[in-house]
Amino acid sequence: MKGYAMLKIGESGWIEKEKPACGPLDAICKPLAVAICTSDVHTLWEGAIGDRHNMILGHEGCAEVVEVGSEVKDFKPGDRVLVPAITPDWNSLEAQAGYAMHSGGMLAGWKFSNFKDGVFSEYFHVNDADGNLAILPESINTVEACMLSDMVPTGFHAVELADVQFGDTVLVIGIGPVGLMSVAGAALRGASRIIAVGTRQVCIDAAKGYGATDFVSYKDGSIEEQVLAMTDGKGVDRVCMAGGDCSTFEAAVKCLKPGGKIGNVNYLGSGDYINIPRVEWGVGMGHKDIRGGLMPGGRLRMEKLAALVTTGRLDLAPLCTHVFEGWEHVEEALLLMKQKPRELIKPIVKLAD
Amino acid sequence: MKGYAMLKIGESGWIEKEKPACGPLDAICKPLAVAICTSDVHTLWEGAIGDRHNMILGHEGCAEVVEVGSEVKDFKPGDRVLVPAITPDWNSLEAQAGYAMHSGGMLAGWKFSNFKDGVFSEYFHVNDADGNLAILPESINTVEACMLSDMVPTGFHAVELADVQFGDTVLVIGIGPVGLMSVAGAALRGASRIIAVGTRQVCIDAAKGYGATDFVSYKDGSIEEQVLAMTDGKGVDRVCMAGGDCSTFEAAVKCLKPGGKIGNVNYLGSGDYINIPRVEWGVGMGHKDIRGGLMPGGRLRMEKLAALVTTGRLDLAPLCTHVFEGWEHVEEALLLMKQKPRELIKPIVKLAD
Amino acid sequence: MKGYAMLKIGESGWIEKEKPACGPLDAICKPLAVAICTSDVHTLWEGAIGDRHNMILGHEGCAEVVEVGSEVKDFKPGDRVLVPAITPDWNSLEAQAGYAMHSGGMLAGWKFSNFKDGVFSEYFHVNDADGNLAILPESINTVEACMLSDMVPTGFHAVELADVQFGDTVLVIGIGPVGLMSVAGAALRGASRIIAVGTRQVCIDAAKGYGATDFVSYKDGSIEEQVLAMTDGKGVDRVCMAGGDCSTFEAAVKCLKPGGKIGNVNYLGSGDYINIPRVEWGVGMGHKDIRGGLMPGGRLRMEKLAALVTTGRLDLAPLCTHVFEGWEHVEEALLLMKQKPRELIKPIVKLAD
Amino acid sequence: MKGYAMLKIGESGWIEKEKPACGPLDAICKPLAVAICTSDVHTLWEGAIGDRHNMILGHEGCAEVVEVGSEVKDFKPGDRVLVPAITPDWNSLEAQAGYAMHSGGMLAGWKFSNFKDGVFSEYFHVNDADGNLAILPESINTVEACMLSDMVPTGFHAVELADVQFGDTVLVIGIGPVGLMSVAGAALRGASRIIAVGTRQVCIDAAKGYGATDFVSYKDGSIEEQVLAMTDGKGVDRVCMAGGDCSTFEAAVKCLKPGGKIGNVNYLGSGDYINIPRVEWGVGMGHKDIRGGLMPGGRLRMEKLAALVTTGRLDLAPLCTHVFEGWEHVEEALLLMKQKPRELIKPIVKLAD
Repeated sequence: MKGYAMLKIGESGWIEKEKPACGPLDAICKPLAVAICTSDVHTLWEGAIGDRHNMILGHEGCAEVVEVGSEVKDFKPGDRVLVPAITPDWNSLEAQAGYAMHSGGMLAGWKFSNFKDGVFSEYFHVNDADGNLAILPESINTVEACMLSDMVPTGFHAVELADVQFGDTVLVIGIGPVGLMSVAGAALRGASRIIAVGTRQVCIDAAKGYGATDFVSYKDGSIEEQVLAMTDGKGVDRVCMAGGDCSTFEAAVKCLKPGGKIGNVNYLGSGDYINIPRVEWGVGMGHKDIRGGLMPGGRLRMEKLAALVTTGRLDLAPLCTHVFEGWEHVEEALLLMKQKPRELIKPIVKLAD
Repeated sequence: MKGYAMLKIGESGWIEKEKPACGPLDAICKPLAVAICTSDVHTLWEGAIGDRHNMILGHEGCAEVVEVGSEVKDFKPGDRVLVPAITPDWNSLEAQAGYAMHSGGMLAGWKFSNFKDGVFSEYFHVNDADGNLAILPESINTVEACMLSDMVPTGFHAVELADVQFGDTVLVIGIGPVGLMSVAGAALRGASRIIAVGTRQVCIDAAKGYGATDFVSYKDGSIEEQVLAMTDGKGVDRVCMAGGDCSTFEAAVKCLKPGGKIGNVNYLGSGDYINIPRVEWGVGMGHKDIRGGLMPGGRLRMEKLAALVTTGRLDLAPLCTHVFEGWEHVEEALLLMKQKPRELIKPIVKLAD
Repeated sequence: MKGYAMLKIGESGWIEKEKPACGPLDAICKPLAVAICTSDVHTLWEGAIGDRHNMILGHEGCAEVVEVGSEVKDFKPGDRVLVPAITPDWNSLEAQAGYAMHSGGMLAGWKFSNFKDGVFSEYFHVNDADGNLAILPESINTVEACMLSDMVPTGFHAVELADVQFGDTVLVIGIGPVGLMSVAGAALRGASRIIAVGTRQVCIDAAKGYGATDFVSYKDGSIEEQVLAMTDGKGVDRVCMAGGDCSTFEAAVKCLKPGGKIGNVNYLGSGDYINIPRVEWGVGMGHKDIRGGLMPGGRLRMEKLAALVTTGRLDLAPLCTHVFEGWEHVEEALLLMKQKPRELIKPIVKLAD
Repeated sequence: MKGYAMLKIGESGWIEKEKPACGPLDAICKPLAVAICTSDVHTLWEGAIGDRHNMILGHEGCAEVVEVGSEVKDFKPGDRVLVPAITPDWNSLEAQAGYAMHSGGMLAGWKFSNFKDGVFSEYFHVNDADGNLAILPESINTVEACMLSDMVPTGFHAVELADVQFGDTVLVIGIGPVGLMSVAGAALRGASRIIAVGTRQVCIDAAKGYGATDFVSYKDGSIEEQVLAMTDGKGVDRVCMAGGDCSTFEAAVKCLKPGGKIGNVNYLGSGDYINIPRVEWGVGMGHKDIRGGLMPGGRLRMEKLAALVTTGRLDLAPLCTHVFEGWEHVEEALLLMKQKPRELIKPIVKLAD
């Protein structure tokens, strides 16, 4: 079979590989659509997860099941499925402790295009099909379905980590596709005011649609000064971090009320330390929780989030700004994600309706 | 001063009373608008809280502050304020334990028209003004502001007790004004499917606007059979109870998945027991939590919920179906609530803009 | 192989069956010791789970692994293991939702001597060995190890459901072996006063050792009157229910403060309803949570609880009042559990050191 | 009246001040015993809270009520009381949000020897007597009662922040008096293994008594290497931080499993940032919560913790290594705390039995 792979750091291309084997709990799937993630860019061009050779890229997509193992009960060839970016080992100690995404080691629930071949391929392998696939509802098209692999669960997880409550004022830092889903998730958890940090017009427009009420640009001064000014010096109840870097935590802590919570889902690619400012963190005692976590994966999560789309609570169309048709456009879509033109939110490659 | 009072069970009318005195932490307020609650009907005609003589009725309203005590810091005469139906003693052990509404004894955070005179009066007394009042935002009119006293916090509290999560299927039993706010609250907490139990068209229309996706009428058969049929026998994740009686818990438990939660805010006026069906409650071990609680009161709650209105997340206009102008209409409004005509959601008496 | 089975309701005896087959994720184990549970009595003589024919009884024991499936990674023949009474399907939707004990349907995580043959057998089958077994620590003997299958996790789960906090006054209803573990668990969660309801001296002595500070006998009057008198009318913060029947919830609710929680782990064998008294439940709004659940099963739980034994926090010896040696004593031990003599806490049949 | 005061940074002595006035909600108290806190040392010699002139020191003690305000209901002159170091404004928005210790601003629930005169004085003022005092139980002596002001609630709060669960392996960094209470609190919350970091023999001995199972000295290498070696590379479930400095968080994060939590109650006196190591924090996504908070104050907390002492769950005698009698020893006790001799845990000045 053919797959679009990272050949080594900085180099990619189509390669030929053997179709993966299907263990007793597994499924083999054929993509219906795939989407490009910033993580693919980090992996390929920045070596974020170290060197990989001839590893097929991609962890966002929806698919058709073509084969299932002997122990799989709930899926069969021909089923059209949602596929989460994170596919945990559900019987691990970590999963039993409520942290399935770290089954097998910190972050190791992320397998596609990390420890094994990804989804930019004629066929791909899914471990624990019953635990990790979900039926693609008929009312969700294959393009938008790709947003459920990573963008929705990751953006919403920031909201869960920040523990948004009715009426909270929430700061969302970063309004790329993940941050937009944090805005949508915050609104769907009952936030009142949602202050979004971002500058690209396409993202600002989408953020307004998803429920942002105020905007801050880092070009207009420090985030903390602007946010404190906007809130009469009181600060915000919650911060969702879907952008920035290690130093951005300083702004987040400075904006936050005592008793507040920061939920980070942003990949931090460089620097030795996340810097938490000592004084504004209450010299250790300010009750400003610093939380960060990989999105939960698995079937239940997919089903729950898909239900938000089918009941009309969440509209994924605004994310899908660039849709290509056919495998031949994977490279173009990937390069687009690398260049990040101002009008881009998400590039998707559609292979079937 | 004049107030509209319960003279004894079954009899009401205008009476003359002394203007209440203002203690060091207190405020004296003058209503801008008041609303009638089903509880006023229970209190007056059903003797729900026992006999009361010449007690001024009413616990929903917004007001202008006319006097404050020596220790009050954040309010002054002339301030226009939101007034919660529940006004706890914030330094009580119950409040410190997180259950301020039970300060001074179970349910004793409810003071207006229960332990002391209510708000259907030229002037009324508020204990702990700093802890219990909130500034009325300019963008909220006096009529809709009355909905923040009880309807919004009570309806939303059912959602909190039921602990609605992203993508949950939620059953809301009862779609009077409180149940409508449970529908709105469930949608604002991330429910996907919301199944509402109710029959009056005005309420069904409002429920659709607030986010209900499916409807069940008890006239079409048992609630549990209809709900189980609608959910392929799986049942619902959460139940918000804003209507029914002691026996309705049986339907709720039967509809609920293991691991599910019931949040009741409905006043249960008769019967010896709430009946939880033994077998469907998993012979004691089904992990179906039965929760019920009086709404949280106080200032923070008012501020947070008002922020949902000012940011446009919550529209209170659909609740306010019957608006009267002037004190002389209090009795008419009260009788309307007793009769509950099909087109009624809430009667409000407006005294000032 | 031989197994001690329920032949039909009311009749039991040794039967010959085929050794179970081992699927790819499974293990076949050989008991080192087994214990009798009151549930075995309910199952056999009361038909609590309906009729069963030639079903091998027993769900408490520790064992040696004799065979593992192809996909099992962490266990191998010869390993000595703890075996939980509840062995969930870890990739189920229920497990992903945090309720693994209900995987496959309410209570269906309970498989041994319910849906399949139990552990009173030369060999028994364990589904998902990696997810459900745990290594038996060397410092725990085979007799006490049996207490980790059900008594410890069930008794401790009542404490978790009741959500005991530092300094709480806790009422434990029932001080058979499960209730004793609720006493121990409450003390280990930080309860201050622990009021235990029970009458048998052997249990009272053990309860004192585990941390009970006060005792109530239903022979001396109603539980609620005694408990309210002991607490100056204030009631208790938490109730753990490990005994009684459907009507006992009435006493529990009457004893409980607003904001309190009841955690039930007691099997309720008869009656149509659990009766929650309407008035003392705050006419629906008293914030007295009613919770009940089957113990969590699986490997992590076994490892965590075993660590309490190996670090000396929990002494299981007082539970093990009647130890038999050899398979031939299973029937005698079972009858002893049926008769429940005054000096009995738990009968165990030891097969190996 | 006389009080022992900070004259300016680095200078202290007895001064004469007016007896404080008693507002309507307040109490005036006369110490029965007082204890010296490391914070007194930080305040006086390190200028930790900035310069203060003629501010009476001390925030640990028990007392007799000598006067109460007109609105105080539950206390009267002659009552012997526990006094928490943190005395919140209970009707503040922060208290209503569950963070009373930050009422009036971050950390501002700490008033004694911070914003107003402390307890090293013939008389001291307590705001909101009903909300902040608790009756001193007869079975607790005045010396040990002082440990309930700060050492117990602060040490236990680290355990609450770290959210210790049954069977957890817990690392406690620092075993001065606060850290010892974290050890005791972790054992009382159900920890199995408790690894304590400390070197002084008197503290190690006390820690063993309180439940520590393993010890680590920073003199024997890095904390993280030792802890990881002790746990077969798996790390710990929880970390309580009651010692160290900003850089110690690095060790804590490196020791922690994904899904783990750090609870800090240690005052961080210098440095710009708390350094969270990026890689071991899972590049932002490791689910390692960083929490830190000032102890909860107030009456309920005092009552709950005192109940642990009266029921024999918690023995405070081992903390009280140095007891002086009479006001004239305050300076000696303070200097002792500054010098911290190897055999010191806590110096207390007893004024009455």
